[in-house]
Amino acid sequence: MDIRKNALLYSCAMVLGAGASLLAAEDNEDALLGRAQHTFKALPADAGTPERPLTPERVALGRSLFFETRVSSDGKGSCGGCHNPFLYGTDALPRSVGVGGKVIPRNAPTVFNTALQFVQHYGGNRADVEEQAVKALVSPLAYGNADYAAAEARLRALTGYRMMFEKAFPGEAEPVTALNWGKAIGAFERTLITPAPFDDFLKGNKAALSAQAKQGLDKFMSFGCSGCHSGVTVGGQMFQKFGLTQDYWELTGSKEIDIFKARDKGRFQDTKNDADAFMFKVQQLRNVAVTPPYFHDGSVAELGDAIRIMGKLQLGRDLSDADISDIKAFLQSLTGEVPPQFAAVPSLPVAGYKY
Amino acid sequence: MDIRKNALLYSCAMVLGAGASLLAAEDNEDALLGRAQHTFKALPADAGTPERPLTPERVALGRSLFFETRVSSDGKGSCGGCHNPFLYGTDALPRSVGVGGKVIPRNAPTVFNTALQFVQHYGGNRADVEEQAVKALVSPLAYGNADYAAAEARLRALTGYRMMFEKAFPGEAEPVTALNWGKAIGAFERTLITPAPFDDFLKGNKAALSAQAKQGLDKFMSFGCSGCHSGVTVGGQMFQKFGLTQDYWELTGSKEIDIFKARDKGRFQDTKNDADAFMFKVQQLRNVAVTPPYFHDGSVAELGDAIRIMGKLQLGRDLSDADISDIKAFLQSLTGEVPPQFAAVPSLPVAGYKY
Repeated sequence: MDIRKNALLYSCAMVLGAGASLLAAEDNEDALLGRAQHTFKALPADAGTPERPLTPERVALGRSLFFETRVSSDGKGSCGGCHNPFLYGTDALPRSVGVGGKVIPRNAPTVFNTALQFVQHYGGNRADVEEQAVKALVSPLAYGNADYAAAEARLRALTGYRMMFEKAFPGEAEPVTALNWGKAIGAFERTLITPAPFDDFLKGNKAALSAQAKQGLDKFMSFGCSGCHSGVTVGGQMFQKFGLTQDYWELTGSKEIDIFKARDKGRFQDTKNDADAFMFKVQQLRNVAVTPPYFHDGSVAELGDAIRIMGKLQLGRDLSDADISDIKAFLQSLTGEVPPQFAAVPSLPVAGYKY
Repeated sequence: MDIRKNALLYSCAMVLGAGASLLAAEDNEDALLGRAQHTFKALPADAGTPERPLTPERVALGRSLFFETRVSSDGKGSCGGCHNPFLYGTDALPRSVGVGGKVIPRNAPTVFNTALQFVQHYGGNRADVEEQAVKALVSPLAYGNADYAAAEARLRALTGYRMMFEKAFPGEAEPVTALNWGKAIGAFERTLITPAPFDDFLKGNKAALSAQAKQGLDKFMSFGCSGCHSGVTVGGQMFQKFGLTQDYWELTGSKEIDIFKARDKGRFQDTKNDADAFMFKVQQLRNVAVTPPYFHDGSVAELGDAIRIMGKLQLGRDLSDADISDIKAFLQSLTGEVPPQFAAVPSLPVAGYKY
């Protein structure tokens, strides 16, 4: 080894010695970002599709109908009644309250980014937000309408909406239908996208997350949380059994649900297929820090408790307080702003309500 | 009479001949404006008083609490549930629905400009908006709280509000009280003022009203409507018997109210004093065109019908279709914009709710 080579190596060693931890940290950050980009995806501007076009007329109509109370049987219920603009698109209740004070069996998830999930509802029995909306309209619990005809009669009585329907669904002989109500509401919901610091991170801005949030992200992936909570909505892209290591209610304290006369078995409630017992859609985690309480029945109030329970139930892992704190910091980086078209509510047409 | 004087008179006659109808119309308009200014008053910027100061902290707290659902016994009720930002501060129902689907005996009036009325409630049994708010909070129908202590326990559980209360009510040992809840909500409501074209007219802009609206204003005053519907809120400044010429329900179709076991007798329901039978606060008419249905029980859906019925019931006058149309045009000039701080709802603090 000649002197020059030695000198060079020595110089390199000096440089490495001085900057080793920095370089290592940067390498780690790049690796973390790379892993995150492999597992998650930044939010798109909206959730429109060629089949579900977001025309301004359709979005505006859906925005009004979302808050319209007079289509429900008691004149009080609306999409906005459980998905409030002032509570991040939820009602902050364990389980929602429908017409006449009837308790709905499951928790109202946030409406933000929900259109990007692979199916709707905890049991996945709604294909998309449009189907979810229409079936709520004709649900005896949510809107209290007996059927499509009853809902459409209420809708057509509100004559102030006719022109809006005609513009949103041009060329249709009778545009004021329950299905178009669902399409319009779906179009509005597909605009309710809430980019968060984590999206900036995924796009390459490594400073968008705090050191603790990055630590939490690392653990979230290393521990296996992201095995299910992945993709653009950090969850919401598959089904999974809730309670892989033990019955979920042993940790969540969930009670039996009256109308099920038992604990909630997830997809089984709809399919009656034993293979679906306790299978639930993996919850999306966007805005999770601001949308308590947690789980399908809202049985857990604190995010830290929810993280601890999930670690145990799904991964068989006893998370330390530090783990929980780090993962919580990561989950907080999924909180976006309330979309302005949702925070500012429209004035509804007053004409035509049949009292 | 010399030639010069004759020539001058001739010139004047020419001018007068050409412009007579115009000048007469202008004289009429000035007279109408003068009469209107004598009877009504333009809206102030807000309804704050030295005793009810509108500090930014108090208004901001009140704005959040106005929409806060978690202080009600079923987690669904709020001021905003009956006074919706998307329905001009009402719920557009004949009679409101409180906790658990319970029907409230009277119609929810708009919250806009209401702080400027001389008393609150149809029977005037609330001195101001602050008292109205607090008593709704501890009402078994509206919020479902048994008493002040129950309401305050719910309020204190929402720990995210504590700092807001401390800032809004500095120096108080325990600022999180039901009375301060009422003061904060009152402060917010005192900002909900909706200037309308009629205010521009009252300030001297004669072009602010259409010809028909002016015709309607003229009739509104000449026929005697403004004998009671006067002042800054075009009503809301006195009590009057509803049904001076005959029982009101003969024209309104009002039904007996369950909890009264009779037709609503207005102030009598509270005072049990025969002199108060059928005495109601004269309703303010600001935003009346956009806040159907009408009367204390919402028994009439159309504004034109309400005008016709009032003419007959209170003035013994059969209004013609033209009269009704003109008066309606005037009443439409009382419609203002939804205040921006009300149309855009706040995000509420999520912390601390006890499930």
